[in-house]
Amino acid sequence: MENFDYCNPTRIVFGPGVHSQVGELVKPHADRVLLHYGGGSIKRSGLYDAIAASLKAAGVAYVELGGVVPNPRLSLVREGIALCRRERIGFVLAVGGGSVIDSAKAIAMGAPHKGDVWKLFAEGTPVEQALKVGTVLTIPAAGSESSPNTVITNEEEGLKLGYGAQVLRPVFSILDPELCLTLPPEQLANGVSDMMSHIFERYFSNTPHVDLTDALCEATLRTIMKHARRLRASPQDADAWAQIVFSGYVAHKGLLGLGRQQDWACHGMEHELSALYDVAHGAGLAVLTPAWMEYVFRDNVPLFVQFAVNVMGVEGGFREPEAVAQEGIRRLRGFYKEMGLPSTLEGLGIGADKLELMAKKATKIAFGAQRPLGGLRKLGWQDVLAIYRVC
Amino acid sequence: MENFDYCNPTRIVFGPGVHSQVGELVKPHADRVLLHYGGGSIKRSGLYDAIAASLKAAGVAYVELGGVVPNPRLSLVREGIALCRRERIGFVLAVGGGSVIDSAKAIAMGAPHKGDVWKLFAEGTPVEQALKVGTVLTIPAAGSESSPNTVITNEEEGLKLGYGAQVLRPVFSILDPELCLTLPPEQLANGVSDMMSHIFERYFSNTPHVDLTDALCEATLRTIMKHARRLRASPQDADAWAQIVFSGYVAHKGLLGLGRQQDWACHGMEHELSALYDVAHGAGLAVLTPAWMEYVFRDNVPLFVQFAVNVMGVEGGFREPEAVAQEGIRRLRGFYKEMGLPSTLEGLGIGADKLELMAKKATKIAFGAQRPLGGLRKLGWQDVLAIYRVC
Repeated sequence: MENFDYCNPTRIVFGPGVHSQVGELVKPHADRVLLHYGGGSIKRSGLYDAIAASLKAAGVAYVELGGVVPNPRLSLVREGIALCRRERIGFVLAVGGGSVIDSAKAIAMGAPHKGDVWKLFAEGTPVEQALKVGTVLTIPAAGSESSPNTVITNEEEGLKLGYGAQVLRPVFSILDPELCLTLPPEQLANGVSDMMSHIFERYFSNTPHVDLTDALCEATLRTIMKHARRLRASPQDADAWAQIVFSGYVAHKGLLGLGRQQDWACHGMEHELSALYDVAHGAGLAVLTPAWMEYVFRDNVPLFVQFAVNVMGVEGGFREPEAVAQEGIRRLRGFYKEMGLPSTLEGLGIGADKLELMAKKATKIAFGAQRPLGGLRKLGWQDVLAIYRVC
Repeated sequence: MENFDYCNPTRIVFGPGVHSQVGELVKPHADRVLLHYGGGSIKRSGLYDAIAASLKAAGVAYVELGGVVPNPRLSLVREGIALCRRERIGFVLAVGGGSVIDSAKAIAMGAPHKGDVWKLFAEGTPVEQALKVGTVLTIPAAGSESSPNTVITNEEEGLKLGYGAQVLRPVFSILDPELCLTLPPEQLANGVSDMMSHIFERYFSNTPHVDLTDALCEATLRTIMKHARRLRASPQDADAWAQIVFSGYVAHKGLLGLGRQQDWACHGMEHELSALYDVAHGAGLAVLTPAWMEYVFRDNVPLFVQFAVNVMGVEGGFREPEAVAQEGIRRLRGFYKEMGLPSTLEGLGIGADKLELMAKKATKIAFGAQRPLGGLRKLGWQDVLAIYRVC
């Protein structure tokens, strides 16, 4: 186990109906906020009105900025920053899924910063100051509701970059599973794929003596798969949604990766797909993850056996560890298929022409640097290309 | 699953050797602290000198108050409060186990409060203001390093009462597993019993649809038992200590009980033993817990079957659920025995003469009120007496 330094101060208010508490939760932090959201779905569902009413009742004024799209755009972030500066706003309230929250965090870090916000992403400059962010989560997936991370797409340059700083953890997040009852099956599937990937990126680690986090990861993965299957059959099962929403938070709150070297190769490879083809992050991960597993599992067969047995329910028979490991990966593919997720790049609408470019961008070799991806195995651009190719 | 509102902002700095960071961790909060500790063990081990050197290097002055004993005493808390007021100290640094941390928290809540601190315990008055507390943990057990709770013994009145308030969560806790290498086997056993009980009190709940926390509880319990056994055989196994220290924190950080009705009957019953007989908390819990389980398991046989199978490794055969449940309890007794823990009140040096008094104190009937213990089953004083008697 490795040393760690961990602090997740995000207050989580969880339960059916709790979204109506948003006004009183904002009030101790701000009298005036930027209300940030996506498309029209929160207006159609009545959530927008409920949020507006709760803010009003608490005496909190707001300026609004909608229009966040999946793979949230730098242009809107810049607009939000200008708006916060102009209106002297110190708090960003994100109402939406991971994209809206990530966009809100980027606004929050950019507003008090003098230069252009993209430079912070491109150079990874440490940030110690940001506006406060609060969230009302509508889609369980990204875990951004308590994470210190944000991922933004620079649409002009075709780049998707992540950034992390402790000050970006939201001060509160409202997790109201009732808001999920109207989500379409693709969003369930994409969300489940994303949260499982947040655990895989931590779980597939060569760090020894990490029994507790191994077991916590496995417990959370099993819970997610069980309830995702239930929701595939009964999309209105409120108890199952509660477990999924709770699991999405636990998957990415930081706890499951403490003391472990982490991987994040699949996320790195997927960001290139999303940057160039604007595919859903969870769908991209479902395509890449099993291929990555097959490419690397021989580096740590015992761990992939453990995954197969403890998570995917593969029966014992440890005399053939590679076969057990491969059966685990096969079952994971089967799970993604059950969820209606794609299994090939073709299924995502991605051809073969830009694979090499993406592999070189993912490893930064396209920018004159060279930063291999991954932790379990370091992947150079040729490795990434090989994985893209089998997809 | 029930609604919840959760925030655990305690920063955890974890790893062998990290205790030397204490000075820099205190510095942003205070230039002058009350250094609070127990007996002479931290002086003999050299920890006291290391802490003093780290504080000095960071420019943090300290006033000291040692002498905390297991089942920490109100008299010393009062002394600490007077000292903090007189010396205008705003930060209490606890170096020790749960007793030292609990004593530090009680000082921290009492110092800025006008009346006597015991009144806050006795009346459960909400407290929103307290001195800041930081900790260097030397014994993994109580989970007080990130919990909002403190338990203090009023030695004059023979009362042991708990108190909880969000402001009592430490601002940081240093978890350095190397400090555990010199702990005697009784402290390992008592600590393990205490942290397991923190999970049991959350796990044994009638709240339905709590798969995720069920699985997280089970994962943590299995990890604790595995590594406790290793340490029984090899007390110097640093990797096993790391898992135990980490598990003690996870057991009581709050996460495992989110959205569940909790129980806490065993803790309530044990506090009476400690208050009157000054027994080790973990030892008392090891005596009471299996007896409590046998007394209540028929109220929720499926959950006790789940415990038997998922935690204690009892083989399937679900046609006889009560037998499976009882085998789980039998194996838990066996585990406590392996750890060298007592299995009877007699083994704790407690006779039969005060059982009724303790049962009436535990349920507050001795004070003219009546507050049944427990959540899975509400226990009146006769129930508590019956459980004491079979012990």
